Amino acid sequence: MTSYRKMTREEMQTEYASVARDFSSLKSRGLQLNMARGKPGKEQLDMVSEGLFHVFAAPEDFVSGGVDCRNYGELFGLASARRLFADVLGCKPEQVFMGGNASLQLMYDTISKAVTHGMLHSPRPWCKEEHVKWLCPAPGYDRHFKVTESFGFELITIPMTADGPDMDKVEEAVKDPAVKGMWNVPKYSNPQGIVYSAETIRRLASMKPAAPDFLLMWDNAYCIHELEGDFLPFPNILAECAEYGNADMVFEYASTSKITLPGAGVSCMAASEANLEYLKKLINVQIISYDKVNQQRHVLYLRDRAHLLELMRRHAAILAPKFRTVTNALDQEIAPLEIASWTHPKGGYFVSLDAMPGTAKRTLALCKEAGVTMTGAGATFPYGVDPQDSNIRIAPSLPPVEELREAIAVLCVCLRMSALEKLLGK
Amino acid sequence: MTSYRKMTREEMQTEYASVARDFSSLKSRGLQLNMARGKPGKEQLDMVSEGLFHVFAAPEDFVSGGVDCRNYGELFGLASARRLFADVLGCKPEQVFMGGNASLQLMYDTISKAVTHGMLHSPRPWCKEEHVKWLCPAPGYDRHFKVTESFGFELITIPMTADGPDMDKVEEAVKDPAVKGMWNVPKYSNPQGIVYSAETIRRLASMKPAAPDFLLMWDNAYCIHELEGDFLPFPNILAECAEYGNADMVFEYASTSKITLPGAGVSCMAASEANLEYLKKLINVQIISYDKVNQQRHVLYLRDRAHLLELMRRHAAILAPKFRTVTNALDQEIAPLEIASWTHPKGGYFVSLDAMPGTAKRTLALCKEAGVTMTGAGATFPYGVDPQDSNIRIAPSLPPVEELREAIAVLCVCLRMSALEKLLGK
Repeated sequence: MTSYRKMTREEMQTEYASVARDFSSLKSRGLQLNMARGKPGKEQLDMVSEGLFHVFAAPEDFVSGGVDCRNYGELFGLASARRLFADVLGCKPEQVFMGGNASLQLMYDTISKAVTHGMLHSPRPWCKEEHVKWLCPAPGYDRHFKVTESFGFELITIPMTADGPDMDKVEEAVKDPAVKGMWNVPKYSNPQGIVYSAETIRRLASMKPAAPDFLLMWDNAYCIHELEGDFLPFPNILAECAEYGNADMVFEYASTSKITLPGAGVSCMAASEANLEYLKKLINVQIISYDKVNQQRHVLYLRDRAHLLELMRRHAAILAPKFRTVTNALDQEIAPLEIASWTHPKGGYFVSLDAMPGTAKRTLALCKEAGVTMTGAGATFPYGVDPQDSNIRIAPSLPPVEELREAIAVLCVCLRMSALEKLLGK
Repeated sequence: MTSYRKMTREEMQTEYASVARDFSSLKSRGLQLNMARGKPGKEQLDMVSEGLFHVFAAPEDFVSGGVDCRNYGELFGLASARRLFADVLGCKPEQVFMGGNASLQLMYDTISKAVTHGMLHSPRPWCKEEHVKWLCPAPGYDRHFKVTESFGFELITIPMTADGPDMDKVEEAVKDPAVKGMWNVPKYSNPQGIVYSAETIRRLASMKPAAPDFLLMWDNAYCIHELEGDFLPFPNILAECAEYGNADMVFEYASTSKITLPGAGVSCMAASEANLEYLKKLINVQIISYDKVNQQRHVLYLRDRAHLLELMRRHAAILAPKFRTVTNALDQEIAPLEIASWTHPKGGYFVSLDAMPGTAKRTLALCKEAGVTMTGAGATFPYGVDPQDSNIRIAPSLPPVEELREAIAVLCVCLRMSALEKLLGK
């Protein structure tokens, strides 16, 4: 295989004809494959449901620390659940608030309350501010960006580096008092799988934003989600921030969506005691407590941190071959052509691919034509617009390996076709 | 027993000495009883959990209408769950949105979105309005009032009549464009157990509020919660409103908190297709879907409307004796004294008692002293202030009958004591 960069125009035209034939042939197969979202596969769901739904045997199983989890009460959730998550996140149980089936909802609600009521150190509710700006490391998680876009904030793109967000740019941006917060996926970032370096975390934890109510949103979605190798420890961001006098700046989120079941797990929010005390008054108006039966079910099933990490190794055993299918295909089929680069993540749920600038949309349109659904082009950037039209998020978790192999073959052909079109000026 | 109204001052003083002795004796028993909140009792929880947590036997049980309820997707919830609730509420499945474990959260979120984004017919988000006012039929549900108070709305008390809210006052109030909505518990209202009359419902459904985005909040919390007698049919408020050209004015809420488990059930919101289409765009940013495994669990357990009503009869068999314990004690111990009046509800979760004006706070303080916790005085009025200091909400559902008997005996003594204090000018 020759790099497209080194081909003559004629060679490219020959190659294009060949690739177009491959594409037609793939298209005629009428495939229906999906690599769009980070959905766990059926094998993972079955593995979990075997145990998760059989933990309640006797009436006593519904009682936790003297609390009947089936009745009203306990706004912050079961003490046992708070302890379990504190153990995972490295913070104190008193700093953990148990949510419902979606950490996204907790994040949305935190920001919604900042808008309607203001946070602990807000001079006023954000709806009374002239203008609110928000930092979005990109490529990043589309649902994060949409939350802050939905509230009308101005989204400011912060480039990602191999160590996390570009901290020079962040430190400059937070001098503006209108900049009220920032999204972060600190471990195995969505979509690149980047792990924030210790230095990046130190700089984030120690910054002094002009806004007194700056929200460092810390979505630790993949905190124990290794694909390969041993568990990678991560710092307790609450303690890091506290060390620099920023105890109330950070809100951390986690969930079991990719530990037990997506959409039927439990989530939590960790924050300083002062922040939780403030929010308690607001959340108490909204809900009596999130589902404590599901919390108890999770505590009985997951038991403790060690048992949890063991479960994650079983997930990895299912997921790693899928990720290798994707990266191996790209390494073999695309690398020699020098038309794209991609990540080889050690954890998380995505492979991030940078296609030749100006070809991501076209590539994904071709994929769609051939029956392969991918995350929309641009989704990983604020407002859904990738200025380079280059980034493509690949979600290998849902399809069985056989289907993945087909889907990635389609993607490879589409990458080649769109690159040749670009190079040939078609 | 002689009416306190007919006693001489000396007779009252003798009676007071006797009641004070009774009170001391009760106090010395060191009771710890609770009639504060409408919590179902353990017998109800056990009855439900026997079946609810054993519905998943095979992996196929997680699939509903081709959807694996364990994975992401289906923002509006499982079609089967939407059908079940539509059947209960008498509306169309397309008008039902499935929520999480708390209808309160859905109500809060509806209003929160009105504040941050505005509703379908809002000229602007409510946070951009100078002033928002809200109608609160009272006595009413304290958590409703707190939601609208939390958002800074001005709460306007609407007196309750035997037929529901005083409609003359409502019709007058909605001429003010700042009046943006109204709370309702149309069947077995909290705390009085009042069922809105057909005429009240017609007047509500047909009113023409000045605010184009007026929200008729219809909390059908006790829609199938009979204590005595047959199921009482109720009108489909969505259709009623639509008939008068007000299809988008009403949002209805229901939950299984008092059908299956409080805090671990499922909730729903019913609204016009246009309203749901509008909200879909906003909710889609907040959550991928609420817990569909719990929805499926409920569908498999509750099956259909007939089976659901059968379950409600079993709840009633547990609850009715508790309510009779309360009302019988009041009928026997307090009625002859002419110092209070109370409801004899046919459904719902509360008995509402009106003590002699100016004595509710004192009565409840005495109860507390004697070890009986009740809903705080004033809680049933906006801002927690009962202008008459008279209304007391009794929640008989949680304690076993034996404890209830003790608790209500304490309440009777405290009612007598505070009435005598008042009459004697102490």
